[in-house]
Amino acid sequence: MDDLIFQAIKNRRSIREFTDQPVSMDELKKIIEAAIWAPSGKNNQPWRFVTITDETIRHEIEKLTLYSHIIAGCQALIVVYIDSEAIYDPMKDYMSTGAAIQNMLLTTESMGLGAVWLGQILKNKDQVSAVLGVEERYSLMAVLAIGHPKGKNRKSHRKDLNDFIIKKFGG
Amino acid sequence: MDDLIFQAIKNRRSIREFTDQPVSMDELKKIIEAAIWAPSGKNNQPWRFVTITDETIRHEIEKLTLYSHIIAGCQALIVVYIDSEAIYDPMKDYMSTGAAIQNMLLTTESMGLGAVWLGQILKNKDQVSAVLGVEERYSLMAVLAIGHPKGKNRKSHRKDLNDFIIKKFGG
Repeated sequence: MDDLIFQAIKNRRSIREFTDQPVSMDELKKIIEAAIWAPSGKNNQPWRFVTITDETIRHEIEKLTLYSHIIAGCQALIVVYIDSEAIYDPMKDYMSTGAAIQNMLLTTESMGLGAVWLGQILKNKDQVSAVLGVEERYSLMAVLAIGHPKGKNRKSHRKDLNDFIIKKFGG
Repeated sequence: MDDLIFQAIKNRRSIREFTDQPVSMDELKKIIEAAIWAPSGKNNQPWRFVTITDETIRHEIEKLTLYSHIIAGCQALIVVYIDSEAIYDPMKDYMSTGAAIQNMLLTTESMGLGAVWLGQILKNKDQVSAVLGVEERYSLMAVLAIGHPKGKNRKSHRKDLNDFIIKKFGG
């Protein structure tokens, strides 16, 4: 158990190229079920989701980012929102949403699927919500592009662990 | 693999009561290594950490939260900061930090340890940094209290999955 989780976390990678194999609504629901088990302050569960497997809508969304080729090539999108009526502290709610997204990325990879967390599209968040018909009370946080991975680009880089530990007391 | 990750995510719980068994620096380093493999925008890796196993410092920190009994009863703290010099977009950086924290919580549990994410202490973030001697360029994001779990309170609650899915296109 120990090393399986740790290795899954270390080996997870952003996947930006996908095969034509579809992703089912059941698969998306499982990924979202993982999201909702993230912790949140006062257990306020502020995250909301839009699922997209429909090609026409996906192609509308792809026009709203510099990374349109990724959205064009994927099979499904999970659009992540936060509900302003559920928020209690924006910074903490953003962190909880990040925790929920990480659960989705880990689960996606464990299912043999691949995903990438798209952030640049937030520059056009109002247009994304207009295309999706999502009300103003919801704020766009992220878009996950999902599909079956094509190829295996497994490289990624992190700074040295010790560069992140700014102080140690004891041990 | 599939269900192991998914079940680990679903079964993770906040642990607030701990035994007297110590937590080692090697264990804390492994937990932080999981953190740093979270994704971040432009791979900016904005998170920083302070580790505390020293009892005197821990008891200083415990005075700065309403949840002092949790800090008093745990064996180690990982204090999570964000480096203002690494930030590129606060909302996205907060989400990345949440992803890193979720990696820590999942890894902690998979190691047979327990942890709880403490947020209320952010009300006294300047005092926390003063006690730790952490410079102003770092902002406090969270404190994780860690130890060997005492008892097994496994209950937690989430709203129905369908309440989180605000729209579906296709599938």
